[in-house]
Amino acid sequence: MTSALSHLECSKCAARYDADAIAHLCACGAPLLVRYDLERAARTLTREALASREPTMWRYEELLPLRELTKRVSLHEQMTPLVRMRRVGRELGIEALFVKDESTLPTGTFKARGAAVGVSRAKELGVRAFAMPTNGNAGAAWAAYAARAGIEAHVVMPVSALEINRVECTMAGAQLTLVNGLIGDAGQIVAREVAEHGFYDASTLKEPYRIEGKKTMGLELAEQFDWNVPDVIIYPAGGGVGLIGMHKALHELQALGLIADRMPRFVAVQAEGCAPIVEAWKARRSESTPWNNAQTVAFGINVPKALGDFLVLAALYETGGAALAVSDRELLEVQSVVGAREGLFICPEGAATVAAAKRLREQCWIAAGERVVVINTGTGLKYSGVVRS
Amino acid sequence: MTSALSHLECSKCAARYDADAIAHLCACGAPLLVRYDLERAARTLTREALASREPTMWRYEELLPLRELTKRVSLHEQMTPLVRMRRVGRELGIEALFVKDESTLPTGTFKARGAAVGVSRAKELGVRAFAMPTNGNAGAAWAAYAARAGIEAHVVMPVSALEINRVECTMAGAQLTLVNGLIGDAGQIVAREVAEHGFYDASTLKEPYRIEGKKTMGLELAEQFDWNVPDVIIYPAGGGVGLIGMHKALHELQALGLIADRMPRFVAVQAEGCAPIVEAWKARRSESTPWNNAQTVAFGINVPKALGDFLVLAALYETGGAALAVSDRELLEVQSVVGAREGLFICPEGAATVAAAKRLREQCWIAAGERVVVINTGTGLKYSGVVRS
Repeated sequence: MTSALSHLECSKCAARYDADAIAHLCACGAPLLVRYDLERAARTLTREALASREPTMWRYEELLPLRELTKRVSLHEQMTPLVRMRRVGRELGIEALFVKDESTLPTGTFKARGAAVGVSRAKELGVRAFAMPTNGNAGAAWAAYAARAGIEAHVVMPVSALEINRVECTMAGAQLTLVNGLIGDAGQIVAREVAEHGFYDASTLKEPYRIEGKKTMGLELAEQFDWNVPDVIIYPAGGGVGLIGMHKALHELQALGLIADRMPRFVAVQAEGCAPIVEAWKARRSESTPWNNAQTVAFGINVPKALGDFLVLAALYETGGAALAVSDRELLEVQSVVGAREGLFICPEGAATVAAAKRLREQCWIAAGERVVVINTGTGLKYSGVVRS
Repeated sequence: MTSALSHLECSKCAARYDADAIAHLCACGAPLLVRYDLERAARTLTREALASREPTMWRYEELLPLRELTKRVSLHEQMTPLVRMRRVGRELGIEALFVKDESTLPTGTFKARGAAVGVSRAKELGVRAFAMPTNGNAGAAWAAYAARAGIEAHVVMPVSALEINRVECTMAGAQLTLVNGLIGDAGQIVAREVAEHGFYDASTLKEPYRIEGKKTMGLELAEQFDWNVPDVIIYPAGGGVGLIGMHKALHELQALGLIADRMPRFVAVQAEGCAPIVEAWKARRSESTPWNNAQTVAFGINVPKALGDFLVLAALYETGGAALAVSDRELLEVQSVVGAREGLFICPEGAATVAAAKRLREQCWIAAGERVVVINTGTGLKYSGVVRS
């Protein structure tokens, strides 16, 4: 029962890299993926073994990249609940509608998963300082785990990001830079900081480990559905790492024999004001084109061009999934409905997935009786300004 | 494995009431406490049985008042983590310093515990609409569970409460009234609404069940410390229900034989701007005197006179505990220290408990080597305005 970490592999050209050295992108420019010795993992990661493990994301130890789990940087990442939405489900004609509620994680969003594994692994590899661009919640999460790890965090975020994210970074003692632009502009500043100061580049997909953290959403879902995966998983796609991670997780579980070959159909939801992946999917392209004048109240998915877009699209094509965009008006309306009917204060990005479920059911893309999971990526509490607007 | 609910008992005159009828205060004016058939509970609530139960607050079913647990109103109240604070602990000279982090509960605060049990039991008793005064977080939690239950919620809160709490109530579809005054003034409006419209009075301690929810903090702590309770538990006391509940919980566990006779020393922390229980404790009185011009940034503990003050004080006296007040400056400073050293964004009320631990250690009231638990009652995310001020 230790990590079955084997090596790193390029997501495009399949080049192989040592997992115990610091690595960022492949020489070909594509993100690296973490690979495991799945045969070895299968020996100890069994349904029976899981039954007696602690109910946190670390229970899937074999499929996580930490060499020494006891030295992990943790704020206690409990498995997040799968909450049935009976009333909303009935209204939408989706009887088996569930929300995977990520708001209960440290820092209030699913970004804690990526940060917990990313920072833990960075620490294990000897990193003392990192830099990263963010739309806010990821930066806040990485700042918190950096504080816990005693690592220096340099976070660059758009000035238009949620103000609470600035407070979180400051509270965690991170170095915060605000940029008058979007996340891509923040990324350019980070690239300069990395080049000048030798910081570890913790940009999305430029380090291979946050995917492994996000992946645990998929592992938990499989287990919570008693290894009989749902029919549809709907995810709000900004950088897309959560979807890439869940898809990777389910393939690993298949290799381990823990789930059958059937995959859920993955759905990527974007906002009408920033929908590059949706456009690419409609045109059956393998990569997206940068979106101009991106804008949405669901700021977490305001990503004009994602480095991992091709992996998201590949997962959609492979699983017979879909991509669609919803309007800010639609998602804010749905947010209120979920609050009033279910008592859940979900975030705008999470609301986008419920709005998407509604549309997909209306179009009969979701059939009657199908089991549908929407991902609420974080707490609505962070967005009080947005809600009132 | 069902509730061992027996009856209701007056906390002052010991008069006995039927637990299966709606009940509020005793005829003598004091709060009612829920009593169980502890002998019956002891038969099934064992360490061994607990090992295989779900990791939520409902695992202590025998000591909860729901007749039909499967019909509970739930947003998935997972056990909250006990997080070691190594760095802060070292700085304070308290090596074994832990925070019980309640921010991971639905609605982001420990109020979810009281609301989950309170609303569940109200629903079980046939309640269709309730009214309650609140400093904000309790109202938000009760509104959320009311939405989930399909019960009408009438919430009255001071206009000076956190704005996010208004948003939460509105999002959950509650009827919200703002009052230009303190929680006592809100209470008077509630009393009128109750008299006029026949609403169920869900004011703190005017219904007996929220204590039972809050109590689970104590049950979890005992189990998380492997049934060897810590030496000191420090709690931010507004209405004081959490402290009353934890104290009650530990007595019940003693009766069940799950823990030994030794009690932790309970500490009630208040703000210097509103410290009625501290003043009463210093004078060794059994009740507090209403505080004039109450004011603190830790709004959750801005309670000039608590109905259950005598129960809080009794618990302090019985356990050899203490009460002390900290300044807003002190607690805001400590909040930043905890953020930067531990990566935890705790709320001002939670920060007050850490500030209190610091003082009590300096005064040697906490001895070297003692195991100390501070309660972080909620997420700091709700207080971004306070932090910046």
